[in-house]
Amino acid sequence: MTSGTDERLLYETVFRRRDTRAEFTGAPIPAEVLRRVLSAAHAAPSVGLSQPWDFVLVSDMDARKTFREHVQTERELFAGQLDAEQARAFARIKIEGIVESSLGIVVSYDPSRGAPAVLGRHAIADTGLYSVCLAIQNLWLAATAEGLGVGWVSFYREEFLRELVGLPGALRPVAWLCVGPVRDLPAVPDLERHGWRERLPLNAVLHHERYRASNQA
Amino acid sequence: MTSGTDERLLYETVFRRRDTRAEFTGAPIPAEVLRRVLSAAHAAPSVGLSQPWDFVLVSDMDARKTFREHVQTERELFAGQLDAEQARAFARIKIEGIVESSLGIVVSYDPSRGAPAVLGRHAIADTGLYSVCLAIQNLWLAATAEGLGVGWVSFYREEFLRELVGLPGALRPVAWLCVGPVRDLPAVPDLERHGWRERLPLNAVLHHERYRASNQA
Repeated sequence: MTSGTDERLLYETVFRRRDTRAEFTGAPIPAEVLRRVLSAAHAAPSVGLSQPWDFVLVSDMDARKTFREHVQTERELFAGQLDAEQARAFARIKIEGIVESSLGIVVSYDPSRGAPAVLGRHAIADTGLYSVCLAIQNLWLAATAEGLGVGWVSFYREEFLRELVGLPGALRPVAWLCVGPVRDLPAVPDLERHGWRERLPLNAVLHHERYRASNQA
Repeated sequence: MTSGTDERLLYETVFRRRDTRAEFTGAPIPAEVLRRVLSAAHAAPSVGLSQPWDFVLVSDMDARKTFREHVQTERELFAGQLDAEQARAFARIKIEGIVESSLGIVVSYDPSRGAPAVLGRHAIADTGLYSVCLAIQNLWLAATAEGLGVGWVSFYREEFLRELVGLPGALRPVAWLCVGPVRDLPAVPDLERHGWRERLPLNAVLHHERYRASNQA
């Protein structure tokens, strides 16, 4: 086991990381910083070493405004499904920083990478999709360590985003990430601060040998 | 932007991380180390703060042997789908360290957590599943920083694993992780070392403003 300093710094980044909406400054991301962050994403584990991710960097403000408009429509759709109390909490919550951030990064999944014989994917097709998410978390932690914020936007229809950035039909968009320098990262997640939902204690999701229904939160 | 030391240590962990099969020593994981690693997983971002993950810690050797037998069957099934050259490469590749590692961690997805109004999931149901993968990558990096190896096993049928650890029908198993102290972490991923597949250059998966088909690897 290694000792001390290294782990503490990793944990510090893990716990400081936030889903960022309102804190973006809009300042440019230095090219070498962006490169390091993307290199961390690209170093993620992937099923059968398929590396099935792509990153489309979207700076263009027209494209970002078009996407934000779509997200706004989806926000209203979701708001219409809420009861009165939820709707009040949701009204306080900012769900994206698409134009305020410095850059949009569309992350997509390409199931053809390494196919047909993807080692480790024959029994569970979604493992390819899982790999893309591992890359996103690497990106998120690297960005956090670099002093950048990341906000994952998921209020969109996949088909809309696919067309917006020209993804081929076989590819699946997995995320729009808002990325850029931030004033700060809030100590408490927005959704907790605004009374949407609280963090669970770790023990609520821990089980020994077998899943115990009584542990459900 | 923060400076220097912190980022370098995060990147060091990101690049040192490996999918571990053959390097486990079987030594026990100190309780406080395991707790820290699981706390890192539990600190992952999740759609609508749903925290839809569960962790079932499997020490029991009978359960692990039963799982390994199932994985062996799936290995043979996959091997039967390969051409001669692939089959030769695959024969050299170890795909699991289920009994050699110190602990199995089954990570599962509970779509009922925070439902029905999961903020950010109404348009894309799989975002809940994505959250579970972010937790897995946090766990993986924390384990790496602590000197532990992690090996994600995906040669199994979800139904088999669900029954083995007693997951309710609504829950979906996402991973079996082999976790424990290791002799070392290989510098090169097993699949690359054994000629299964190579790492791609970052530029092969990078696109500007729109996806360019010519970038496909």
